[in-house]
Parts: sequence; C-alpha cells; structure tokens
Amino acid sequence: MNPTSALIVIGNEILSGRTQDANIRFLAQRLGELGAPLREVRIIPDIRETIITTVTEMKARFGQVFTTGGIGPTHDDITAACIAEAFGTTLELHQDTAARMEAHYGVDQFSEARHRMAMLPKGATPIINKASVAPGFTIGNVHVMAGVPSIMQSMYEAVEPDLLRGSPITSRTWHTTTLFESMIAAPLEAVQNRFPDLDIGSYPFMRADGRRGVALVAKGANADHVAAASEEIRSLIVTAGGDPIEGESPV
Amino acid sequence: MNPTSALIVIGNEILSGRTQDANIRFLAQRLGELGAPLREVRIIPDIRETIITTVTEMKARFGQVFTTGGIGPTHDDITAACIAEAFGTTLELHQDTAARMEAHYGVDQFSEARHRMAMLPKGATPIINKASVAPGFTIGNVHVMAGVPSIMQSMYEAVEPDLLRGSPITSRTWHTTTLFESMIAAPLEAVQNRFPDLDIGSYPFMRADGRRGVALVAKGANADHVAAASEEIRSLIVTAGGDPIEGESPV
Repeated sequence: MNPTSALIVIGNEILSGRTQDANIRFLAQRLGELGAPLREVRIIPDIRETIITTVTEMKARFGQVFTTGGIGPTHDDITAACIAEAFGTTLELHQDTAARMEAHYGVDQFSEARHRMAMLPKGATPIINKASVAPGFTIGNVHVMAGVPSIMQSMYEAVEPDLLRGSPITSRTWHTTTLFESMIAAPLEAVQNRFPDLDIGSYPFMRADGRRGVALVAKGANADHVAAASEEIRSLIVTAGGDPIEGESPV
Repeated sequence: MNPTSALIVIGNEILSGRTQDANIRFLAQRLGELGAPLREVRIIPDIRETIITTVTEMKARFGQVFTTGGIGPTHDDITAACIAEAFGTTLELHQDTAARMEAHYGVDQFSEARHRMAMLPKGATPIINKASVAPGFTIGNVHVMAGVPSIMQSMYEAVEPDLLRGSPITSRTWHTTTLFESMIAAPLEAVQNRFPDLDIGSYPFMRADGRRGVALVAKGANADHVAAASEEIRSLIVTAGGDPIEGESPV
C-alpha cells in the first residue's frame, strides 16, 4: 500500500474568494509522482481552535500532512503556534534560523516582527529553501510551508527528499467529443470491476468554446494494469460508436 | 451573526491534480456577497464511507453545506446514494424529474444510465437549472451540485433564492510594492485590535513578472467599520514610508 498525504490550506483569502488557490494542484501532482497520493484537502480559516483540531485529526489519519499559509510576520500568521500546540509543545527561537536571518537582514533590520518567523515549535526542523530566508519547518509527520506559491514550491523541493514515497501513480486518458457519459456507463463500470486496484474515472467537460465531451481516465500504482485498462477504454469508445482521442481535451 | 456555509468537493480528479478546481472561488465570492460566508472546504475522494462521514459532520457544524461532483450517470458517481445514507434514507426515482428527462431525451434515449440521474434521496427537492436536464438536489441543509463548473454555476443560480443569508461581507484592499510585511506588522495588529469584528489580513505577493509587495485587506459585515479600518491601513502604509495603492495588485 502506498503511503497517504493530506493538505491543510490555512487562510481566509481562499475562503473569501480573494485568491484563487494555486497550491493544491501542484502538491497533488508532485505527491502522485512520489507515490504518496493526496487523499484529502481541507481549507480552513486562521482561527486557533480550528487549526489545532484539524492538524491533530489529520496527522493521526494520514501518513504525512502538509500545511500552507500563515507563517509570515503579521498578527494573522498563527500557524506555527497552533502546530506547536497540536504537538503538545511551545515555540522557541530557533538559534540557527535566527543566525541565518540576522546574517541576511543585518542586525538593524532583523526586527521584532521578523524574529517571529524564527520562532519554531521545539523539536522542529527548518525547511531551508531558496525562495525565502524565513524557513518552513517539519515536526513529526507535518510539513509546514508558506502560502505564496513560489515560496511553497521552493519549500516543497527542499523537503521532498525526506518525504514518504511509494509506487508512483500513473494514469492514461482517452477522450471523445462524440459520446455522452450515459452511453459508456455500463462497459466502463465493467472495466472498473476487472481492475479493482485502479481508479477508473469518467469526467464530462464543457469548454468555453462550446466543445463538449467526456474524458475517461485509468489511474493507479500498477502501470501494467493502467496500460491494459486504458486499451479496454479505447476499445469501448470505439464499440459505442465514438472517436477515441488519446489524452485530455485541450482546454 | 451571519449564517455559515461549507463546501465539500467530491472528486478524485482534484486530488490527483488532473483538474484545477474552478468552483471554490466562485462559491466563496457568491456566498460572501450573500452574507453566508464559506467557513471550510473539504476535498475528498469518491469513497463511500468518506463521503458519508464528511457530510454527516459538516451538515451538523454549518448552516448550509454544498457539495460538488459525483452526480453523473457512471459507476464513480456515488454522491446521491451517500447523501441519502447520511440522511438515513434511500434513493427513489423522482417522478417529475424522470418525466422531464424522458421528455428531453425521448423514451428510447432515456437509458438505464440516465435513469440513475433521476434517482434522488427520498424527500429531496430537485435543483432545476438551465445547463442540464439532470438536476442537482437539496435535502435538509445540503445542496448537491454538479462538478462541471458551468453546470455547477447554473445550479447555484437556481438554488440561491432559497439560501441562508446575512449581512453581505465587504472588503477594501490597499497594496504597496515598497514595503515588507515585517515593516507594518505592529501597526496592522493595532488596527485588528481596534476592529475585532473585522478580519484584517496581510497577504504578501510575488508576481510572475518579479513584482512583489503586500496586500492589506479589511473585511467584514459592517461596512462602516471596513471603511474606517481601510483608512487606517492607508495611513499606516504612508507612515511606514510606503506608497499606498488602492485595490489588489494586478496579476
């Protein structure tokens, strides 16, 4: 069995619709390639009790948990303190991190607000990255990262070598623009039944240009099964009178 | 107090990274305008137990719950059956819906697979919409919608008149490209403390073109407070030596 991953997006800006999330898909794809697929995402506000409860539940249920958001220097950045509490510990100044930040900013500019970003839960390991001198951190099975996508991605690259991994998840997709889902529902279910270890998915689409159709996806950790199921999918599209086109429909 | 909303995104295609979610932000914005802000989002796989557990928990915790995805005609569309189970009931053929679908498709094309989409939990009300003859549905405080964005939006428009609502959430934003968060952390916290009913948020950004800065947002249900806090935010940017620009930085 592959290890599992979960993501907690901490931030009012996604829940208010101010910001379009750009981190979920990045992590979903990278964790799939790593063979530790993303099994659940929660987007929660920066409310102390909510963060603590969610982290406590998720770190027990999943192999590894990622959080994004709330690790900056302002009053609404409460992630580190909440993570500490979820692990039954407190924040302390991480000396190496403080030294790195002081060297970067200079003593004069290493302000009280910036000191906050060198406060890590006791026992945490900083995620030193190329995008920001203030680090993310790992404690237990929880990896705490920034919300700004470019910084989050840099932190992910830095922590990836230490992550749980399994058999990479691969997928193959066919689409057709001449069939409706209902016309292939029965034979597609038969493919799912023959390959219970795979996820056989059916995804209707409607493009802005009016093009519509359905994408059929075979996905799983066993690449031979994915290839065999994909061939059955191609074949069932033909049998139903459709024109199978490999891959996703271009957006 | 405003009523609360939550969203459950049901679908392996978001968790695998195959698809970029396009529904969260739409609902977040619309529910904010309605004064029933989105307080939590969960993205879960189409696994029966997971859906039932999540729906059961969320419908108890929030004023109204929305689900997207999993209401089509294929084997992986299990949302309706799971919602029924979460409400302690079962699916039955919804006669009006079946009649509408048969009239739309004709008797010959109203296939067994399409019949599945006329099976609603007992006691549910269909969400009749302009984008698809197969409806979404409402049962209790749960509104079940399609995952395809254009259809989801059409279902939302149809159900909106029946939703809980409160004082619309408004927000005002200033941004600056000449300050770092750490330089305004203390006076910004003071604004938050003076307006405890608002969310005062600080959001650093880094654009693909290399432009960076921070956006400061005052948000809440009391428009007078939002206006007053926004003026304090403008003023604190000036005091810190920055150039306040109204609104978000263009992407």
